[in-house]
Parts: sequence; structure tokens; C-alpha cells
Amino acid sequence: MLTRVKSAVANFMGGMMAVGPNGDQPGCSDLPLKFPYSRPEFLGLSPDEVECSADHIARPILIPKETKRLPWSTGYAEVINAGKSTLNEDQACCEVLVVKRRPAGPSTPNRMPMTRRRSSLPNGEGLGLRDNPDISNDLTFHYWALFDGHAGSGAAVLASRLLHHHIALHLQEVMEILCTPNLLPPTCLGEEPIDHHLSPTSQRALTRAASLRGAAGAPGSPSTPPTRFFTEKKVSHESLVIGAIENAFKDMDVQIEREKAVYNVSGGCTALVVVFVLGKLYVGNAGDSRAIIIRAGEVTPMSAEFTPESERQRLQFLAYMQPYLLGNEFTHLEFPRRVQRKEVGKRMLYRDFTMSGWAYKTVEEDDLKFPLIYGEGKKARVLATIGVTRGLGDHNLKVHDSNIYIKPFLSCCPEVRVYPLVQHEHGADDVLVLGTDGLWDVLSNQEVAEAVTSFLANCDPDDQHRYTMAAQDLVMRARGVLKDRGWRISNDRLGSGDDISVYIIPLMYGNKQN
Amino acid sequence: MLTRVKSAVANFMGGMMAVGPNGDQPGCSDLPLKFPYSRPEFLGLSPDEVECSADHIARPILIPKETKRLPWSTGYAEVINAGKSTLNEDQACCEVLVVKRRPAGPSTPNRMPMTRRRSSLPNGEGLGLRDNPDISNDLTFHYWALFDGHAGSGAAVLASRLLHHHIALHLQEVMEILCTPNLLPPTCLGEEPIDHHLSPTSQRALTRAASLRGAAGAPGSPSTPPTRFFTEKKVSHESLVIGAIENAFKDMDVQIEREKAVYNVSGGCTALVVVFVLGKLYVGNAGDSRAIIIRAGEVTPMSAEFTPESERQRLQFLAYMQPYLLGNEFTHLEFPRRVQRKEVGKRMLYRDFTMSGWAYKTVEEDDLKFPLIYGEGKKARVLATIGVTRGLGDHNLKVHDSNIYIKPFLSCCPEVRVYPLVQHEHGADDVLVLGTDGLWDVLSNQEVAEAVTSFLANCDPDDQHRYTMAAQDLVMRARGVLKDRGWRISNDRLGSGDDISVYIIPLMYGNKQN
Repeated sequence: MLTRVKSAVANFMGGMMAVGPNGDQPGCSDLPLKFPYSRPEFLGLSPDEVECSADHIARPILIPKETKRLPWSTGYAEVINAGKSTLNEDQACCEVLVVKRRPAGPSTPNRMPMTRRRSSLPNGEGLGLRDNPDISNDLTFHYWALFDGHAGSGAAVLASRLLHHHIALHLQEVMEILCTPNLLPPTCLGEEPIDHHLSPTSQRALTRAASLRGAAGAPGSPSTPPTRFFTEKKVSHESLVIGAIENAFKDMDVQIEREKAVYNVSGGCTALVVVFVLGKLYVGNAGDSRAIIIRAGEVTPMSAEFTPESERQRLQFLAYMQPYLLGNEFTHLEFPRRVQRKEVGKRMLYRDFTMSGWAYKTVEEDDLKFPLIYGEGKKARVLATIGVTRGLGDHNLKVHDSNIYIKPFLSCCPEVRVYPLVQHEHGADDVLVLGTDGLWDVLSNQEVAEAVTSFLANCDPDDQHRYTMAAQDLVMRARGVLKDRGWRISNDRLGSGDDISVYIIPLMYGNKQN
Repeated sequence: MLTRVKSAVANFMGGMMAVGPNGDQPGCSDLPLKFPYSRPEFLGLSPDEVECSADHIARPILIPKETKRLPWSTGYAEVINAGKSTLNEDQACCEVLVVKRRPAGPSTPNRMPMTRRRSSLPNGEGLGLRDNPDISNDLTFHYWALFDGHAGSGAAVLASRLLHHHIALHLQEVMEILCTPNLLPPTCLGEEPIDHHLSPTSQRALTRAASLRGAAGAPGSPSTPPTRFFTEKKVSHESLVIGAIENAFKDMDVQIEREKAVYNVSGGCTALVVVFVLGKLYVGNAGDSRAIIIRAGEVTPMSAEFTPESERQRLQFLAYMQPYLLGNEFTHLEFPRRVQRKEVGKRMLYRDFTMSGWAYKTVEEDDLKFPLIYGEGKKARVLATIGVTRGLGDHNLKVHDSNIYIKPFLSCCPEVRVYPLVQHEHGADDVLVLGTDGLWDVLSNQEVAEAVTSFLANCDPDDQHRYTMAAQDLVMRARGVLKDRGWRISNDRLGSGDDISVYIIPLMYGNKQN
């Protein structure tokens, strides 16, 4: 055991973690790690505990220590895979961030934002904007995130440490607008706002906000309205937050690419993030993790999975338009299985990028190439390589034994869904559940909802640990127990052999917050 | 009046119809028309009546004559626009088609199918497959379609005469498979089927079906199963019908392009088609017409509109990847309004193809170009030209005073939705409503559902004309009455000045059919 701990500690220092034997793609890199491999910061594990967590036989379920409560009493639990990779390639992050107003002056969009992490996080309550006398200078947001790495843990670790800073940066850019209620975002900063419900006070506030960046010139005075155009789209505050999350994902992906020049950043990762700001939950998803809201026992999906099957038409369209991306080895057409040489000239089922149905075509020589999308369900792959089509990283990923890059087919852009939390009442058992695919591969939305609801019903509503215990229970139900050399769950089904990470976020704290 | 009739008749012959002054794009074409302008064949109008129907002042509402009942007692009504184009650019088609099995022999996929139109259409009942002793040789399908033309009526007229033949052709290709229930379509024709519930009889039936085309060689006998692959997608019968409709739209579009070399085919058109075959309704839509099912008063949308706004991300993605399509005059970025030169260097709201939210960017010289997508709602345009992004035709359409073609941004591919009609029970008031945008621009789904439901409730359930009267009522509600020089509908709202065409299709006849 001591040896194993020593080895693990050595790995933290030497960057060997990124070249593990199973599933960790050899980075062919002598570069150092930017951040050592670890488990989520809020678990507060010692190196020894991190080592123990990676036991593929015992698969211990980890939960936060009692002294490390997460905001909103959020529940969290995780477990490592059954051996498919040396390390747990899931990563997580949970923070309450306070964005400070950027000092006036020339625009510096590429600078990291002036955020401060909330120093103590007893529960996060009581620090909402309304209660905060600093309202005009600070914007507080809550943040939960899951990252599911592949081909190494480098990208997942990096994203878990940095993505929230990118979100904070983009929110900082628009925070003065967001903090001026009842005022539409101005189309162009440095000009007058266009809102019609404008009070003189908020007019002045926005004029100030708008003139803070971009233009040196002062906006026109209220008595001389600038020229208006026959059509001008109105953009909501909500759209600005969505845009901030979308661009933060893009910047994170660019940063991963950039860091690769200096550090060893292995693999790629999915990203599922939740931002709670100004009374609304924003769920941004790029990958195959999943978020659902359970409210009064009813399930509302808050994300959709991005896989070769769900994104088939986007991928085929891209390949059709830029066929050089297929390196003359793949075809953008889909067939139900590989075409064989002897079938040239016969009629075979196919689908093109425009089709959701199937038809027959006469097989040509070109159809013998390997299909861009191949396989079904969890086995579906893009370019015979990857089973998830959105996420961060993977810049160096190529088709085995070729020079065909996968990255052009992957999108780092999340789909963002919004839940206007404070517009609803929530009981103690209404929660948002986030899980990596290790959870959802073996449990349906309905099974998760029933498990969580029945678990919470048996807890003391005032017990702050109930959500962590529910998360632990959920991970247990998805992992199962070791029986006859296999992990088994209820009804003797196979348990998940994947890494599993789960948040259970009670929604009623959001009501208290605002 | 006589003069007008003469002039109209002359137009039928001379092709002048395509160069009308209002909205009819001058084709710059001396070519003849393939089909003269007319109203839907099932209306059975004389040239004189066609002429009267085009009265932009009276705007008479046309319905089928009593002697010309449509299948299923379908209701239909239409009215011309209030002057935006000389002709009614909506077209419609309704047929019951019988697809004959193609004789064995070499594959001739480009030949027109051996269909016959049902010679008399008293009601369409009693000719379903089950009652038909010819089941193995014939496939009957019902067909309703609406086409909404723009920039001339040529494409709409052509599509209304021919699209159903393309559908029949594609159904013919797979009819033997479709008519063999409980059997999955074989991946490759000429090989053994893969279905596991295979009776020896149906096995033989399919083997025969499969060997009829494509391969000359006989499939393996049941006792020597061919090699199987570790993954092979199962494709449903339903997917084959969807694929047939999708490919029929493509072929129709190709034919329009081809016919342009020989005939004057002006403009483009949307297409909304309904195919009822083997117990299911298939609704294929390319454009901004709409189909809804009203069942027990509840609305189920059966189509979605394809407009510059709903397809923004697809269009921006294409322009981003193939920027030469923008001719150096447009930008693929979206801004809330035109950017002005004085705003270069300022921060302005924008959206890229990856974003559904908005963010600020610093305006550059390139952003002064006109946006690919511009305007809101009904005024939204692609390349400042067209407000609908799917349909047929438009091959010659260019941005005004430029060499920039619009067609690459338009898709001829329909979205197909399926309603398993025979799996539901239907009363006499359960209907499928199809309408061109002239209807839906002024009435919501809910208003239409309430109007139809309350109208039918006041009719004798056995009156075969009730659906036509309901369609007439609906067109009247959308057109309104001429008051103070404007068309007004309920609550003194503006009536539709567009062409309006409406089908009301009772669903209970589908139950009787199967």
C-alpha cells in the first residue's frame, strides 16, 4: 500500500499520470502537468485518500467530509470505474463566485476577471444580490460542474480548475447591464439604451454602464435621441447570460489548445455546468452527461446528450461540405453496417445528411470506405474513434494510424437551457440531479427520480446531509455490488463499470437566495 | 369581363402568366410553360371561373363543387391575396394513388412509376389494402399537398402536378418490403433478411422480393445463413416511407432545375404533403406552411416552419464554412440591426452560428457587410431576399443586382413527422388541418382548433360537406371582410392579405380504411 501511495505521489509530480496504461492516451509529452491529477477540491482528500479512491476492486464511494459542506447543502458522490482507466477521469467543481466590477478604462477583454471565491461556504445563503449592499459593484453566481474525461485526465482537470473563471470573465463584461433590471441590453455600447419603460434613473445608470467600455465618446443626451432603425432586435438579459456561458466554453477550449504548447494536457472531456445567477438556473451541456430537475416527483430534462447518433446530421453535413476532413478513408454516408466489396452494384440501405429516414442506393466503390458514423447506442463512434461529439480538448486526437484529426467534428459549444427558479416554489425534495454517463447508462430518468424521491422522503427534512446521502445512494444503485466477478444492480442487471459522479442540488435554497 | 377572360385564356397559351407585374419575377424567358397556370385540378374550374377567382377586390372563397368530392370527404377552401401578386401562387393537389409492382428485370430507378390514379374518387373508402385481393401487387396511398409559390407560380404549378409521382416512384422501389409485415427491410437487397420473427412463408416472400432487383444471384438458403456482423442497424418500415418522401422532394427539385432548360418555370414554392399509407399518416414539410391535428379539441403540431430565424444556425454554419457563397457582400454574423461605419471599434451585440445567446464583440470593418440573416418575424430574410428557407425551385434566384445565388442556402429536404393513425380511435370532429402561411399568420393553432371544433359541432355528423364548409369558414375567418379599405377579422385585427389555402381532413376515414 505504501508503495502504491509513493508511486501515486511521484506521479503527481512527474506528469506520469497522463500516460497510464488503460485508456490514458500516451501524450508523447515530456511537458509538465499544469495541475496535478487529483479529486475535486471540495472533497479535500489527502494524497493517500486520493490513492485509495482509485481502487478498481473495492470502488469506494466518495462523499464530501462533514466539515466541507457545499453551497445550498448540495449532495455529491463519486466512484471510480471498474478498471477501464487507471484514474477516475471524471472531475467536478463547485464554487460560489463574486464578480467585481471592472474598473473603468480601456476595454481589456482578454484579462482574467476580478473574481473572488467566497472565502467560507457554510451554505451560501444570505449572500444573494438583494441582501447585498454592494449590489452595484458585485455579481454573485453559484456554479456546479461535471467533466467526464477520455484518453487521459488532463483536459478534465484543467477545465475543472478554470472554466468557471472564463464564465466569470464573460459575466463581468455584461454585469452592469445584468444588474440594471427592466433595461434591455443596448445594441451598441456607448449609445443610448432603447428600452421604452425607462425611468430617468435607470436611463442614467445604463448610460454610465454603456459608456464604461468601448467608446470614449459620451452617449447622446436624453433630449437628442439618436437615429433609430426600422428593425432592431431586442435582446434579453437571459440571452446575455447564455452567450456568456457559450463563449466561456469556447475560450476554455482555446486555452486548452494554448496550454498544450507548455504543459502536458492529455485527452478531452465533456462539460456539464450549472450557473445560478439573478434568480435563474442556466444548465450548459457539451457532451453526454445529463441534468434533470425533479419537482414534486416529476422529471424535467435540463440537457440533451451529444453523441454520434444525436449529431449525425451535423457531422455528415460538415463532412459533405469539407470532404478533405475524411482523408479519403471515410464516407459521410451512413449504412446499417459495413459494405463489402462483393456488394458493389447491389442496392443497400443508406442515409445522407438530409435524411432522417432510410432508402436504398446502388453501392459504389466509394461506399466501401469506413462510415463517418458507425455503431449503435453506446458503441456509436465518429471516425471509428470517439463516442461523444461535444466537449473540450482533444486537439491532438487522430484516427488510429492516420493523419485524420477528429477535432473538426467535435464542437465545444454547449446547449444552454434555462430554468427560472425563483418563479417556482420548491419543497425540500425538489432537486436538480447532475450525473456523468456512468449514472445514466444504467438508470433511467424515472428510476433516478424514484430513487431520489423515496430516499429523501425517509430523511429528516432539516438534515443538511440528506442530499449527500441521496447522492451516495444513487451512485451505489448505479455501481451495484460485486457479485460473481461482476458489478450487479437491481433486477440482476449489470452495474456501471464507468466512473460515476453525481450532484443532487436542492432547489429551495435558490428561492431563499433571492 | 369578356376581355379579362380572353386575356386570361390567351395567357394560358402564351406563357405570359409568368411575367405578371406584381411579385411574379420576370423569367426573362421565351420558353413555353409546361403546365398552364390554373387552380387545383379537383376544383374543376373553367377558364372563366379561374379568371373570376383572381379578383383581388372581391376575393371569392373557392370550394370544390359538390360533384367533385375529395377522398375521405376532405374539406378544402382557398382565396387569392389582396393584390400582392396577380395570380394565386398557392397550389394544391389531392389524389389516391395505386402503385403497381414493377416488373422483374434490371433495375430502372429513374423511370416514372407505374401508378394509376383512382379513376373515381367517391370517397376512397373500401379500397384499403385489407379489402383488396390485389394486396401483393398494389400499394394504395392517399395524398394531400399544398404548395405556396413565390416570385412566380411556375414551381408551385409544376410541383402540384408531379411531386406525388416522385413519391409513388420511391414507394414503388420498396413496396414489396412494405407489403410484407413483420419483416425488417434487408440491409442489402439480394441477401437474406435478418428478421428473427421470420416465418418460413414470409422468409420466402422477402427472399423473392429482395431478389427481384439489384442482384441476379439467389440469396442463401435458410439452412446456410450468411455471415453476420457485430453491429447491424435495424431499419423500420416507417423509416423507408420517410426516406421515400425525403428523396421524392429531392428528385422533384432536380426535375424543376432540369425543366428550366426547356420550359419557363418561374420562382420557387414551399411544399407541405400528407401521405397516408399502411395505416400511418406521414406529414412532410419544407417551408412555412403548417399542419396540426385536432383530436378531441386538443392540438398536436405535425410540422415546424423553416424560416431564416428557425434555421439561422444552419445557414450561418454553411456561410461560415463556405464564405464564397456570400460574395464578399454579406457577413454570416448576426447583429440586432445594421452596423454603421461610425460604430467600428465599439462593442456591439452579435451571435455566431454556435450561439443561441448574445454577446458583445468589437465591431470590425468586415461587420459592416449586410447580415446573412436580417429582420424579425415575417420580415426576416436570408441574403436580404427570401423569407422561407426550405422548398422547391428558386434555382435562378439571386440577390438583387448581384451574382450571389440564394439556392445554396435553401434546402429542398422536408421534415417528416409520423402519426400512427390506426392506433387511435377518431370521432367525426377529429381532423388534420393543413394551411399555407396566409392562414397561420393571422390565426393561432388554438384559434383554428376552436373555430373548427365549434363549427363541426354545429354540423350534422353525417353531412359529407361539413369539412368543406368548415374549411370555408376558416378561410373566411383568416381573410376577414373588407371594411374601411382593409380586410378585418375578429377583434378588428387585420385579416390576411396573402393567398390562403386550407385542407380539413377527417381522420376517422383512416380508421375505416385499414
